[in-house]
Amino acid sequence: MTDEAYLEYVLADEIPLTKAIGIKVKKFTGDSLTLTAPLENNLNHKKTAFGGSLYSIAVLTGWGLLTMHLRAAGLKGQIVIHNSRVNYLRPVTGEIVASCSVDVNVGIEKFLRIYQRKGVSRVLLSVQIRSGDKVAVDFVGRYVVHQ
Amino acid sequence: MTDEAYLEYVLADEIPLTKAIGIKVKKFTGDSLTLTAPLENNLNHKKTAFGGSLYSIAVLTGWGLLTMHLRAAGLKGQIVIHNSRVNYLRPVTGEIVASCSVDVNVGIEKFLRIYQRKGVSRVLLSVQIRSGDKVAVDFVGRYVVHQ
Repeated sequence: MTDEAYLEYVLADEIPLTKAIGIKVKKFTGDSLTLTAPLENNLNHKKTAFGGSLYSIAVLTGWGLLTMHLRAAGLKGQIVIHNSRVNYLRPVTGEIVASCSVDVNVGIEKFLRIYQRKGVSRVLLSVQIRSGDKVAVDFVGRYVVHQ
Repeated sequence: MTDEAYLEYVLADEIPLTKAIGIKVKKFTGDSLTLTAPLENNLNHKKTAFGGSLYSIAVLTGWGLLTMHLRAAGLKGQIVIHNSRVNYLRPVTGEIVASCSVDVNVGIEKFLRIYQRKGVSRVLLSVQIRSGDKVAVDFVGRYVVHQ
């Protein structure tokens, strides 16, 4: 099973609403994760993407990336969102594509190290949703992992 | 048709994902709106309510209250969420109940007056989701109405 197929299974199995949203795992590179969903499942009154769907996809992109990092480190844990802020910069008028990267600034190794030592750890992740080549939604979420 | 039935129709018709979430309009008083959704449609990996569902219900509680106020004022307009922040204070382990009120501090009359004069207006709304008698989710969103 590929990493993408594994995460897609986890999402569909553990969070049933992701099936109605139509979430697919497009690409996991180790440092980044991209999730997609079709516009038609997630329309709003303006026939663009519903803000609640965009938020759900964004929050799960960060959650999915942490899930894969915990798994790669051989750790088990519960990842939850603690708080977040989101800016809707422009409407999303086609396929929803959300990406999250953990570069050196995110400190993912430190996040995992603290979790191993203390059994709880926090990390701030940024997720972008693009419409064409422009950022349409800018999401920042603080996640907590605990046992 | 009651106000509640009208808004429930609008939500189901214009934002199809609300049917999967199971959103119901519990009560509209003029000054406040309460939406509900069953936990079982919105479970996460911990068998509590999924953060994306909680966000979706919260953002629609504010949106629904503004929709009803525009309608009561005889105005047409597009209401969209511009930005928001949300704090998850405790898990939601039963029915999801989200409430939004417009007291004098919100300035809903001023919001409508500016919209009539300028064709665009902004307002900050606060929505709470309770678990039992405690606030579980604290949402603040800035909404824009435009023509």
